[in-house]
Amino acid sequence: MFHDFKLIDDRPVAIQVKEYVKRLIIKGALQPGQKLPSTREMSSLLHVSRNTVIAAYEGLEDDGFTYAVRGKGSYVAAMVGHAGSGESTFGTAELWRVDWKAKMNAYAQEAARLDIMKHGIQARKGTISFTSIAPDEQLFDLGNVKRAFMDRMSIEGQVLLNYGYAKGYKPLIDYLLRYMEHKGVDIRGKDMLITNGFTEGFDIVLSALRDPARRGAALCENPTHNTAIKNLKLHGYDITGIPMERDGIHLGQLEQALEAGSFDVAYFVPSYHNPTGIVMSPAKRNAVMKLMMRYQIPVIEDGFNEELRYSGAHVAPLIATAGQSNGVIYLGSFSKVLFPGLRVGWVLGDRELIDSLESIKRARTIHTSTMDQSILYQYLLNGNFDKYLKKARTEYKRKYEWTKACCEAHIPWAQLSGDGGLHLFLTFAEGFNTRELLTACAGQGVIFTPGDMFFTGAGEGGNTMRIGFSRVADDDIERGIRLIGQTAGQLMG
Amino acid sequence: MFHDFKLIDDRPVAIQVKEYVKRLIIKGALQPGQKLPSTREMSSLLHVSRNTVIAAYEGLEDDGFTYAVRGKGSYVAAMVGHAGSGESTFGTAELWRVDWKAKMNAYAQEAARLDIMKHGIQARKGTISFTSIAPDEQLFDLGNVKRAFMDRMSIEGQVLLNYGYAKGYKPLIDYLLRYMEHKGVDIRGKDMLITNGFTEGFDIVLSALRDPARRGAALCENPTHNTAIKNLKLHGYDITGIPMERDGIHLGQLEQALEAGSFDVAYFVPSYHNPTGIVMSPAKRNAVMKLMMRYQIPVIEDGFNEELRYSGAHVAPLIATAGQSNGVIYLGSFSKVLFPGLRVGWVLGDRELIDSLESIKRARTIHTSTMDQSILYQYLLNGNFDKYLKKARTEYKRKYEWTKACCEAHIPWAQLSGDGGLHLFLTFAEGFNTRELLTACAGQGVIFTPGDMFFTGAGEGGNTMRIGFSRVADDDIERGIRLIGQTAGQLMG
Repeated sequence: MFHDFKLIDDRPVAIQVKEYVKRLIIKGALQPGQKLPSTREMSSLLHVSRNTVIAAYEGLEDDGFTYAVRGKGSYVAAMVGHAGSGESTFGTAELWRVDWKAKMNAYAQEAARLDIMKHGIQARKGTISFTSIAPDEQLFDLGNVKRAFMDRMSIEGQVLLNYGYAKGYKPLIDYLLRYMEHKGVDIRGKDMLITNGFTEGFDIVLSALRDPARRGAALCENPTHNTAIKNLKLHGYDITGIPMERDGIHLGQLEQALEAGSFDVAYFVPSYHNPTGIVMSPAKRNAVMKLMMRYQIPVIEDGFNEELRYSGAHVAPLIATAGQSNGVIYLGSFSKVLFPGLRVGWVLGDRELIDSLESIKRARTIHTSTMDQSILYQYLLNGNFDKYLKKARTEYKRKYEWTKACCEAHIPWAQLSGDGGLHLFLTFAEGFNTRELLTACAGQGVIFTPGDMFFTGAGEGGNTMRIGFSRVADDDIERGIRLIGQTAGQLMG
Repeated sequence: MFHDFKLIDDRPVAIQVKEYVKRLIIKGALQPGQKLPSTREMSSLLHVSRNTVIAAYEGLEDDGFTYAVRGKGSYVAAMVGHAGSGESTFGTAELWRVDWKAKMNAYAQEAARLDIMKHGIQARKGTISFTSIAPDEQLFDLGNVKRAFMDRMSIEGQVLLNYGYAKGYKPLIDYLLRYMEHKGVDIRGKDMLITNGFTEGFDIVLSALRDPARRGAALCENPTHNTAIKNLKLHGYDITGIPMERDGIHLGQLEQALEAGSFDVAYFVPSYHNPTGIVMSPAKRNAVMKLMMRYQIPVIEDGFNEELRYSGAHVAPLIATAGQSNGVIYLGSFSKVLFPGLRVGWVLGDRELIDSLESIKRARTIHTSTMDQSILYQYLLNGNFDKYLKKARTEYKRKYEWTKACCEAHIPWAQLSGDGGLHLFLTFAEGFNTRELLTACAGQGVIFTPGDMFFTGAGEGGNTMRIGFSRVADDDIERGIRLIGQTAGQLMG
């Protein structure tokens, strides 16, 4: 015994000794009542200092794994209920097996079925992957993030580490309310809830609105953000997708749908729409809002990537267009632009609505990480976001143009859409199958996102794909797209 | 104009100038097409340097609020859709009002109704509050938290700030699996999901298990953790509470309930049970698990505060008692012991179950803050937790004994329970009303938690209360408890 002790770096040695002995006790190698080697013996057995062993033995006693007998030494305590102690409730003959798979309800099963992370093609090392639309890590200004953390911890570290409020961290809420005012939003009668990113906000809103007694009816752009499709389905919504035009959703078809059916909610992504990359024109924003008002359809607006817009006049979000009206719920996040690892998003909407959502938030996650919120707040306050955004816009614009040029050169058969942002959307001729293309390309080390998963109807979009370029190096962009083009050419015969 | 510009500290001046001008544009004080003062003029108007104004003007242009005309200056752009721009979709006459309150479904209404944060007595400044069982901020070792952050950021800052995995941060999962092994858990066939604290774990588990077609039936200790009662109700469970004895749940009554009814799930808090502070004895743990196995009732174990146990031999959690059986789902968290502001908890259970829960987690919040997870991981790895725990156990033990002595001295009529932890539970004679006591005490600046909210049946526990002492200073503990005792004495006549 004691010969298989191995030290790892960067962890206090006393704790490593303590845990090593714990494992021996748990495995039954050291039995209850057995005396541990003296601290002096153990020190020489493990090649660590005697003080280290003394500290480790103290820790074992604190945790109830040993007891000390004055003048005699440390003894292993009885490990009540431990699996390896021979005292566990059930013998090996008597094994209680719950069939958890069978216990999973329809919601859990659907969540797994719609979980593309479990069904997608995994990138092998060396693969050129166009599947991500996460930001480029190389752009992160780590120094400023560290500074923001240290600044905030110095000001109110104890507050940050204790419980916060379900609604969110007050300085951040105040900052973001002003930020939304700068986007032209009339915040009178409105309020804000901080969430764990866009996804939690969307999930909470749907949880509050769904009618458990019947299926809901949702309107959205088609194609649209696949997580939104997933969550609408998980909440029992039937989805009616309206085709896209060059400047956003097709108004005529939207109006037709509104006349033909009745809808509980609409979901729109007006800026750098996922997956098409289209920015809805100001005129269309107004027209869409007028329709929503006429038909009284509450709107969930996904502020996705609007921070990245790098050209032309400021275009206000739908919630600004609605002025003092309270029909729009705006879901914001810096995830795609700034740091997705900091899970912070916000819901901006009618004050009474936010009051209800706050209680749901509290019942689900108590509150969003105060650490994340405060780092983000301090980073914004320090003015880092504006500088970062300038750099990010320039870099993504450059990459967007490069990717577009590559697509035009190497995949001339595909129709391109996307006004900027972090991705482009390609549409091949009817009948072309991008899943087949993906299989063929994956074999050669290039992957992308097949477009069908963004469509609301089964079998739609089989001839489309999304190219996310934000995290791919320039030369890989060209190599990858050339290969996609060549392979597509071969498939087309 | 330009006379109401006021600088605040600690924020780049150029950004303050930019935002000031934005507000003027949004408010309509600066109209589309209007020329901004030259940078030189603006510099003297606002008393800031000209370079600052130049940077601010660049920012305005970047954000699309102005455009530059070469050789002439900066002009206000048309603010399409902005509320104050006179170009919003709806005139003031045409206001779209959605009645959000009416749109809230039963779940949202119930969440608000059961939200005690909205209905409890708020502590005024100077009030002695025994309502919190959050840790004492004075114990937080901020220096080590900062170090953990800096260490981790240096190693992999870019990774931490980008997207992580729904299941959790791998190094933390590995660490916690070993940590649970040290509690005697047989982790073969089991896996772990990291959540935003206990609450998200519990909510996700119930979401996966509930049968939407009927009400569920849950067993638990009575009284029990009020958030658990809330979430069971929100998920449509009828709750059967089993009374407590000195060493945990009443076995006879538990068996009687199991014989009389059928149950979908049981929820237990075996260590420093909330609110009674009772630790379930090892013998009782075994007996409870045998019953659960015989009646095939899956168990949700709340690991609440078991880290704080400061005396006697190590008592294994129920999941350890179950050995290789997979009938127990363990929900862990360091929130009450360490830093609640870092929202990190974990679900340990059957591998197939965790696989399903992972997809639900992804659909709801994508993943838990990587920042929180990595800080916690590095803090644990650095060995800080063990040291902190030693300090915290000593301090809370001292406070527990002091509070207990105060209760015995000043509230001799109440029966005390609680073996340690962060709170004590008081039971007065039948018919005594602690809500009346609370009202009377609150008027004199002392508040506590009335016990009825921890009971599963309506009207139960009206003669009980919880005293949380973790965040109250020693002399306030005595003053507050003396006042409660005096007031109770007066109420009893």
